[in-house]
Parts: sequence; structure tokens; C-alpha cells
Amino acid sequence: MTAIEVTLLGTTSAIPTVERNHPSIYVKYTGRSEHCFLFDCGESTQRQIFKANLNFMRIEHIFITHWHADHFAGLFGLIETMSLEKRKTPLHIYGPEAERFVNILLSLGYAVKQFEIKPVNVNFKGSDTETIFENDECLILSVPVKHGVPAVAYALIEKDRIKIDKERASQLGLPKSSPIFNKLKRKGFIIYNGKKIMLDDVCFVEKGKKMVYSGDTKPCENLINIAKNSDLLILDCTYFENIKTDKSDEFENRYHTSLNQALKIAADTNVKQLVLTHISRRYPSQKALEKMVKEEAEKSKINTDIKVAKDFMRIVLR
Amino acid sequence: MTAIEVTLLGTTSAIPTVERNHPSIYVKYTGRSEHCFLFDCGESTQRQIFKANLNFMRIEHIFITHWHADHFAGLFGLIETMSLEKRKTPLHIYGPEAERFVNILLSLGYAVKQFEIKPVNVNFKGSDTETIFENDECLILSVPVKHGVPAVAYALIEKDRIKIDKERASQLGLPKSSPIFNKLKRKGFIIYNGKKIMLDDVCFVEKGKKMVYSGDTKPCENLINIAKNSDLLILDCTYFENIKTDKSDEFENRYHTSLNQALKIAADTNVKQLVLTHISRRYPSQKALEKMVKEEAEKSKINTDIKVAKDFMRIVLR
Repeated sequence: MTAIEVTLLGTTSAIPTVERNHPSIYVKYTGRSEHCFLFDCGESTQRQIFKANLNFMRIEHIFITHWHADHFAGLFGLIETMSLEKRKTPLHIYGPEAERFVNILLSLGYAVKQFEIKPVNVNFKGSDTETIFENDECLILSVPVKHGVPAVAYALIEKDRIKIDKERASQLGLPKSSPIFNKLKRKGFIIYNGKKIMLDDVCFVEKGKKMVYSGDTKPCENLINIAKNSDLLILDCTYFENIKTDKSDEFENRYHTSLNQALKIAADTNVKQLVLTHISRRYPSQKALEKMVKEEAEKSKINTDIKVAKDFMRIVLR
Repeated sequence: MTAIEVTLLGTTSAIPTVERNHPSIYVKYTGRSEHCFLFDCGESTQRQIFKANLNFMRIEHIFITHWHADHFAGLFGLIETMSLEKRKTPLHIYGPEAERFVNILLSLGYAVKQFEIKPVNVNFKGSDTETIFENDECLILSVPVKHGVPAVAYALIEKDRIKIDKERASQLGLPKSSPIFNKLKRKGFIIYNGKKIMLDDVCFVEKGKKMVYSGDTKPCENLINIAKNSDLLILDCTYFENIKTDKSDEFENRYHTSLNQALKIAADTNVKQLVLTHISRRYPSQKALEKMVKEEAEKSKINTDIKVAKDFMRIVLR
């Protein structure tokens, strides 16, 4: 069985608090092999990784949603520590204008520089979803969102897997486990004891899991499109007051999402689990937020499992 | 009475640990008025300031010892938060090559920029001590040290104060408190009830306090000179193994100070209080270090009060 293990390393918005660090999400994908990704890298992400007992050296790819300090200021220290630990493998850093800002970052101060850093620009205009990373088992997509500065949302999508229905295989006279199943998957059929067995006769499709991270954004169509039918949507929910779609509204021009908007997004996208993060420090009480979310979710009658993020929260998709 | 209140916000060396954040020292000087200074600004300094319940908006001047990430990576986030909090007063950032690196820093990402940032280059070559800041009550000096990259140590020196010996004044027939004392200090003499009284007859000098912060350095003459007779020396003590002055020594070429060298510096400079900081993560136990320091200090027979730094340690000089 595969797993996507998600650890929220920071859950505040622009200014940190005693309880909440700046945004960063550590994702460990375990399939046939293991892959570690980081989404955003707010200040002190490296120390949060230590506290969460995760491995920062295994991070292969970092995805920055946008270049506001709270989403990237931890890159410098993390890169430096990787160098001090004698990392040799390249590190890919994706983001809108990644090349421009990563190059500035690398010219700052006296750094050790032990390994190659490869910035990868991602598209931040229009409405096209872009596949920015792919391996045998998963894809990472980006899509432009609305935040006043170039910004994107990311989706980690596990590829669907063709599995053998062992019971049906047994009914057709096949053994319980055997290298022939690999051959069957590869060729689409096998001849077993003189009998031709088609892959379709014994297989089923195990749907891949999907995780989406909004970064900072107002509600927008691109986000709705990429988030559709996710197993997990980690969503900017800076404000818990209602935002009216009215230009005079205090929060309307701040390019973030509020609780009422988040619930509407959950309903429109049919996500299984919604995690509200990037929480303004104006809300010091986790308990009060959880109570508010429970009440509002009940009123809106959606089926989504909704959580208020806190630092070091771990969610495993299996 | 005046006070220099020193809070250690971070006490690790290059790599942070669960217990120790990156270096930064918050200094609040209270005399006729109050002034807040920051020495170095490692990653997550702003959050450490919140945790220490200090006021980051009151910081007027930041002194960077050198441009290794662990000593400056918190600048970006701190400046951004000051902007978000609508700071209007200028912020001075001092350091070797401050202009070069502060300008790079300010070109990184999308920042709010609400106030002026004034980088001030300090000399990092030769042996001259430079006065880089002065007000009515104190001075800040810098001096080059040896760290492989341009680096300096800083001293905060409170100016000596002329005080009136109230008992002697009373013996000469002067009142207990009166505006005439200000006049006496200003003019050097007064005529009181027809009698000429000289300032020298009734005054004494209250010696100003002195605090020195080494930044990262090998032991060197410049550091010894600036640290002489300090009330408090906060010293790089990355290693607790003995470093021999031998080119083959494992630590000799690392441009840091070790415990045996720190004790020699304390003896050579006659400092009252020595705080050992910038501690390598190879030493996880604070208790073991304290025990080692106690034993070594007893052997070396110096009178200095020695402390092993830990995060949020507060020292007040009165």
C-alpha cells in the first residue's frame, strides 16, 4: 500500500506567533520508492523539520507558491545546512520566477555551496495547469492563483495503479503470487496452462490519491479546478470572519481566503479532507477556531472532514 | 541607575537544534532614555523575540558580525514584520560589507517596505577600533576579528557618568537635591551662599559598563584589546575540546574558539563575566558542558564568572 504522509511545519500567516511558525509542508510519498517534497519554506523551516523528527537531507524538490517572505525566508538556512551536511545531490526549487529569486538568494552572504541548486520557473499567468514534475508513481502540477503577486497552487497526484484481483485470478486457476502478474501487467495478457488470460479479466484500477495546496490566494476558478475531488486540500484560510464579495469589505482586497469562502470551495470541489491553514495571529485560540469551524460546517451541510491546522499536525493518506 | 539588559535569543553554531536557535542578542540600554540594539540576527530571531516577550519595533540599530547564514538569515523576516507593523522610523544595519549584502537582501522577493533601511559598512581590515555609533550615554565600537570571511566584534560601552557625592555636598552646606547640581556639572563651579564650590569638591566618576560580543572568531589580539576589562564578554565557544595551536589540529583551521582558548582570553582580558555561546550541536547536554566549564575554570584559577549560554538567558548589568 502506498502512503502520502503530510506534516504541517508552520501554520501562521505573515507574522509568526509563539505557537505557529511560518508556512511549510513536508510531504513523504511512499510507494515502490520513497520521495520527500517540501511545499513552501518559511523562516525556521529547518528547525521545525528537526522538531518534527523528519529528514531534511531527503528533500529532493521544493515548491514555492510565491515570493512573500513568510513562504520562502527559510530557504537560505535550509540550503546552508544541507551544504554543511555535505549534500551532493541537486536540489530543485520550483516557483513562479524561481530562477530570478533563487539566483538572488544564492548571491547573499558567504555560503558553503556543496551541491547544485536548480531553479525551475513555473507558469503564473492564465488558467493552464502545468505538469512540473513526474516520476513513475506521481505527478506534481501547478496552476496560477490570485494573490496580488505571481503565485501558484500545487497538486501532488499519485498515478492510478493497476492491481490484480487475487480472488478472480485464483478462480481462473492462477497462483496466489507469481512473476506472471508482472508479465500480465506489462504485456496485457499471458498464456497460463495453455489458457490465454487477459489483464482485463483479473485487474482493477486503484485510484491514486490527490493532495492540493493552495498557497495564498483569493477563491478563484483555477484553484477550484485543480482541487476537484482531492483527498486532501490544504487551504489558505487567513480570516475567519465572513468576507463578502463586495469591494468595500475590509478583507476583500487582501488576496486571501476566509472560512465562509473555504467552506464554499470544499462544497464546489467535493474534497474529502480540508485543512485550514495560514491563520492570522489575530486568532490566538485554536479551540475557539475549531468550535467556529464545527458550527459553520454543520450549517453549510457539507460532508468534508475539516481541520484547523496547527504546527506539526500530521495527516496520512493511504 | 542605568542598566544594560542582555537577552540571548539564540546560542547554537551553524546548525540549529531543538533547544538552540541561531545567534542573536537583544540588548536594552536604560539610562536617561531607552535604546534597543540587536547583535546578529539568525534565522527566526523575530519569533525568539516574541517568545522572550521583547519588543522588536523598538530596535533602532542591528549589528551583524559577518555574513554567514546563521548570523543574518533572520533579517529578511524581521524587516518584513516591522513593515507589516507599519514601522516608519529608519533602521540602521551595520556590518562588514553591510551595504553590499543589505541591498541584495532588499531585492529578494516581494516585500512591503514601509521604512528606510540604512546599511552602514564597518571596517574589517587591520587592527583599528572604530566608533560606529554614539549617543549621549553610550558608544558602540567595532574591531576586525579572524573568521575566514570579513568579520568583526562589537563593544557596547556606556560612558562614564559624573555623579554628585550627596554626603560631601551636604557637608559643604549644599541642599540634598537642587537644580544647582546640574549647573555645577555644566559650569564646573557654582557660587552658593556667597561660597565658591568647585565640581571636583563634590563629584565622583561612576564608571560606565562595558559589554563585548565576539561574533565568530579565532582568538586574536584585536579581540583581546577590545574585550579588556569588560563587565560582560559574550564569546564564540563553538568547541569544548582543547584546540592546540598546531596546524594539524582538527579544529585549528575552523576559525572559532574553544573552551581552553576562551579561558585564556578571560584571563588575558580580566573580564568580570564570560558567557560562552555559538555552541556546536555536537554537545547536546547543557549540564555536561556546565560541569566541564566548572572543572576547567577551577583548574585555570581565574576569577571570572563563567556561564554556558542557553536560549533566553538574561543578564543584567547595573
